[in-house]
Amino acid sequence: MKIAIMLYDGITALDAIGPYEVFSASLKCEVKFVAKEKGLIKLDSSMGYLHADYSFSEVTSADVLVVPGCCPPNYKTPMNDEETLNWIRQMDKTTKWTTSVCNGSLILSAVGLLKGKLATTHLGSFDLLKSLGTIPTSERVVRQDKIVTAAGVSSGIDMALQLIAWEMGEDVSKGVQLILEYDPQPPFDAGSPKKAPTLLVEGIGKMLQELAEKEPIV
Amino acid sequence: MKIAIMLYDGITALDAIGPYEVFSASLKCEVKFVAKEKGLIKLDSSMGYLHADYSFSEVTSADVLVVPGCCPPNYKTPMNDEETLNWIRQMDKTTKWTTSVCNGSLILSAVGLLKGKLATTHLGSFDLLKSLGTIPTSERVVRQDKIVTAAGVSSGIDMALQLIAWEMGEDVSKGVQLILEYDPQPPFDAGSPKKAPTLLVEGIGKMLQELAEKEPIV
Repeated sequence: MKIAIMLYDGITALDAIGPYEVFSASLKCEVKFVAKEKGLIKLDSSMGYLHADYSFSEVTSADVLVVPGCCPPNYKTPMNDEETLNWIRQMDKTTKWTTSVCNGSLILSAVGLLKGKLATTHLGSFDLLKSLGTIPTSERVVRQDKIVTAAGVSSGIDMALQLIAWEMGEDVSKGVQLILEYDPQPPFDAGSPKKAPTLLVEGIGKMLQELAEKEPIV
Repeated sequence: MKIAIMLYDGITALDAIGPYEVFSASLKCEVKFVAKEKGLIKLDSSMGYLHADYSFSEVTSADVLVVPGCCPPNYKTPMNDEETLNWIRQMDKTTKWTTSVCNGSLILSAVGLLKGKLATTHLGSFDLLKSLGTIPTSERVVRQDKIVTAAGVSSGIDMALQLIAWEMGEDVSKGVQLILEYDPQPPFDAGSPKKAPTLLVEGIGKMLQELAEKEPIV
């Protein structure tokens, strides 16, 4: 199965590396990191890089396209870049699955792939997603025909395991889960707005809102 | 808090990026990706790269050192490289926490930091860890004084959340968990040898054993 993971400056590393690691561990996928221009891709933390091995012009089809998210407001750059939107549009015509992680669903919305459809996003991006004509829902992994959106950051791991299960069956998905020892045991149970303390949810919501009003880092 | 994440060719990306993302999301850590020589670092899948922004000579202290793991037998290269072992030894003299993810604990053992101590590793590396004089245990996160080892691949996320809790308190750890929406919902419950089907555990164990007998990819 051919997987294309789109990279762009200001991306959240785990949004991309979570799904990459799952597909890679299946031993049945060819994964390509693709960006407008190949080379180093600056992370949203400004503390490191990923690397795009391919440019858009070098990858024109895939079975699965993954559009990762980023720290707000770095999605503004790809959302306002016609070349990026056109590449996603062209890729989508070839895919079995077009997917996003975190606020990557904003970019799929900007492409026009989520109009009137249900999708999820990061907890800080629900209003923006709605303003783009998409119907936000807070499930962890949301499937609408061939479009699959995942919630914030770490949810791309669950989404990719689900895609592996749909495409290759339950045993392969379980095998990948075992190889990655994905038997989560976080010290607390605060990983969603429904579970975290209210004050924390409000504080982080406010911080994300303030970030969203700034300019992208690149 | 200063975090140094050691990279080397043949590494497993998620072993490094899981902890990176947790420390980064705390907004209270400076994270540096460090390798023997800076530049692109080949992943164990041969399908991509991470990037070391610093060489060993440029980073000589940290509050937390993270030594990630890799697909067998890529640990052989750092385990047999005196410069790498010496760098870890020197770094450990400066750290509050010296940590590993997955079979990164084999490298800490080779340094001599785990002699007679309890540690965990990837499900495929228990025998090798024992042969190095360490006492293997299958907990997800194992603390021995200031040395913390985590189980396979994805467990580095849990370990880093735990370190954040110890160093910065429960609320910061919960806040990071919320920002990363780490509310895992894998489609199956097969993430540890105790939970996965026996046939799968045996098959993957055999595959890892065969891999361990090969030569490193670089």
